[in-house]
Amino acid sequence: MARTQGKPTPVEKKLVGLADLVIRAAERGKDPSIEIPVRSLSNVKFNQRSRIIEMGSNTQARTFFNVGMAKKFMQTMLVGDALAELQRADLTTSLREIYYRAKHTIADSNENTLDGQNESDPLIEDLEVALEALREELHVRAENAGTVIGPLTVIDDGDTVDCAKLGKGGYSVPSIVEPEYVQIKKCTADFVLLVEKGTQWNRLAEDKFWKKYNCVLLTGNGQPPRGVRRLARRLNDEKKLPVYVLVDNDPWGYYIYSVVKQGSINLAFESQRMAIPDAKFIGLSSRDPERYGLPRNVGIKLNDKDIGRAKELLNYPWFQKKEWQKEIQHMLQVGLKFELDALANKDFQYLTKRYLPRKLQEKDWLD
Amino acid sequence: MARTQGKPTPVEKKLVGLADLVIRAAERGKDPSIEIPVRSLSNVKFNQRSRIIEMGSNTQARTFFNVGMAKKFMQTMLVGDALAELQRADLTTSLREIYYRAKHTIADSNENTLDGQNESDPLIEDLEVALEALREELHVRAENAGTVIGPLTVIDDGDTVDCAKLGKGGYSVPSIVEPEYVQIKKCTADFVLLVEKGTQWNRLAEDKFWKKYNCVLLTGNGQPPRGVRRLARRLNDEKKLPVYVLVDNDPWGYYIYSVVKQGSINLAFESQRMAIPDAKFIGLSSRDPERYGLPRNVGIKLNDKDIGRAKELLNYPWFQKKEWQKEIQHMLQVGLKFELDALANKDFQYLTKRYLPRKLQEKDWLD
Repeated sequence: MARTQGKPTPVEKKLVGLADLVIRAAERGKDPSIEIPVRSLSNVKFNQRSRIIEMGSNTQARTFFNVGMAKKFMQTMLVGDALAELQRADLTTSLREIYYRAKHTIADSNENTLDGQNESDPLIEDLEVALEALREELHVRAENAGTVIGPLTVIDDGDTVDCAKLGKGGYSVPSIVEPEYVQIKKCTADFVLLVEKGTQWNRLAEDKFWKKYNCVLLTGNGQPPRGVRRLARRLNDEKKLPVYVLVDNDPWGYYIYSVVKQGSINLAFESQRMAIPDAKFIGLSSRDPERYGLPRNVGIKLNDKDIGRAKELLNYPWFQKKEWQKEIQHMLQVGLKFELDALANKDFQYLTKRYLPRKLQEKDWLD
Repeated sequence: MARTQGKPTPVEKKLVGLADLVIRAAERGKDPSIEIPVRSLSNVKFNQRSRIIEMGSNTQARTFFNVGMAKKFMQTMLVGDALAELQRADLTTSLREIYYRAKHTIADSNENTLDGQNESDPLIEDLEVALEALREELHVRAENAGTVIGPLTVIDDGDTVDCAKLGKGGYSVPSIVEPEYVQIKKCTADFVLLVEKGTQWNRLAEDKFWKKYNCVLLTGNGQPPRGVRRLARRLNDEKKLPVYVLVDNDPWGYYIYSVVKQGSINLAFESQRMAIPDAKFIGLSSRDPERYGLPRNVGIKLNDKDIGRAKELLNYPWFQKKEWQKEIQHMLQVGLKFELDALANKDFQYLTKRYLPRKLQEKDWLD
């Protein structure tokens, strides 16, 4: 399925450029060296204007004639080679398979090129930032753990998939939804509802919530995988749809929301194309148990880890708005966290019939 | 979406029967009591003829006027009541939501009806066996973590879903695929390939393996969830399709295969409608690394847990065939386990283009 038979892709050119660099250095008798942007907290900042987490401009040279770097340099080239193979053959694969592909025993030795995936994963991230190519553009996929349903039509591998006609099961969101693989043909929804857990997604799918409220229902079954985030981002970008995030009321839920909204510290480089700075937090808010009359006994006592995590969140630059400080403080004061599942205490369809309709009507969300 | 408006479903009748039993006992001044089949190893056996794990006929009475059982009896009734509500409203839900639904503080006390989901889950299993109703028939769902692609057309909630026209993403397999929810309209495949991990499923989907080899590609992203097992079973039953299971070569892979084939000890009651006694193990076999020239350095050393687990498997009645003893012994002798991902060491498409085609051609599988 190569886009333009025979012609190298832009990413392939970049990868080949790496190899050229080594050859040119060798010809001139110089030490081959590549500049790799620094992927540590020190080189990450929250951009208040664009409201995303961004990488700074610090780089580090990785050179071959350096005892401490020679092996890593060689490994970087091997991983780059495997990635170039993916481009040439127009294949996608997983981080784990790249590790296996690049692993062999070095001739006349007992030394392996790579001893574990923990060696190749960071190199792939290095190449992402050095070459300014999203992981998806490098053709590296994660699991496709997400599902979508609603008035959205995509073209996937030549097939026109109408996500409004897939019963209650839905379309399994591929790990890579870049425009070269998945095209958004049509979307008549008014908004995207990104639901943390599959249980609630199932409830909403079963109740045809998406039909009544004209929305796209997305879930990633936990922390949304890259494909799900990227699809939400594209719907936000290309179709100008607001994105509402529905998570458990616990520090982990806040964190999931914050990653969807401004990206993560670990993968700051990708925020520019993954983050959704105007995503809204629709719930569960720590105020909701009172507002919606949830009994205390369906709350779960915060443990020490929760409390520590919540206090950390209070310090993040992107949680400095007054409303957010109140939201998190309130959870700490009450000392309880609440799962979305707890809404079932009122009624199995409470989420669909009461909670979300009222939330949407009152525009009761946090930014 | 009630099938016959107003009329109670057979399962609802059974649940109401439980309540009637209590009322009748009360009217006669007797101790209400229900008979619950024993769900422990002592009451489970492997049926050599049908080749599935089955429950025996031991039961235990759960009575109300018994200090040790009164609370559990009350909880059983509460859970039964929540399940009846699902039937009446024709809703499905999760184990967790049933826990929340049935939880409340008992009037004039600080006592909760249920303190944790670990109290309600076993009661649901009790009711499954006592009422002879599959969990799906009780309308209790798990996550839908599975995906399917291939020449299979199902009807889900009135929508006709052609799984050959969903690109590389596929149809997200619902947790409940009972005929009342999902109908198999058409399937022209020659076999079902049930793949343990999403990575390999993605490889096969991307390479359109299912088209060339005319099969249904199923994955559950790990231990297949109930919906995936049940769909494979229905394709085996209703369409007489052979089912081949493709797993990592490790004790966990053997275990996954064995659960697909003869059911699990924990849920022996369900084997009759979940197990696929003629499912075949297509790989990875412990012989494959030699046969297919995989280097030793992509194997992973068995740890103590692996070795202990493999030795346990050797004693299971369903692994007593000579070929299986050889298979497991060989893994122990070599001292290595191999992931399917390791096939990428040869070539990213080795699985699609060499490994599986040769396996199928040589009919190289274990029964």
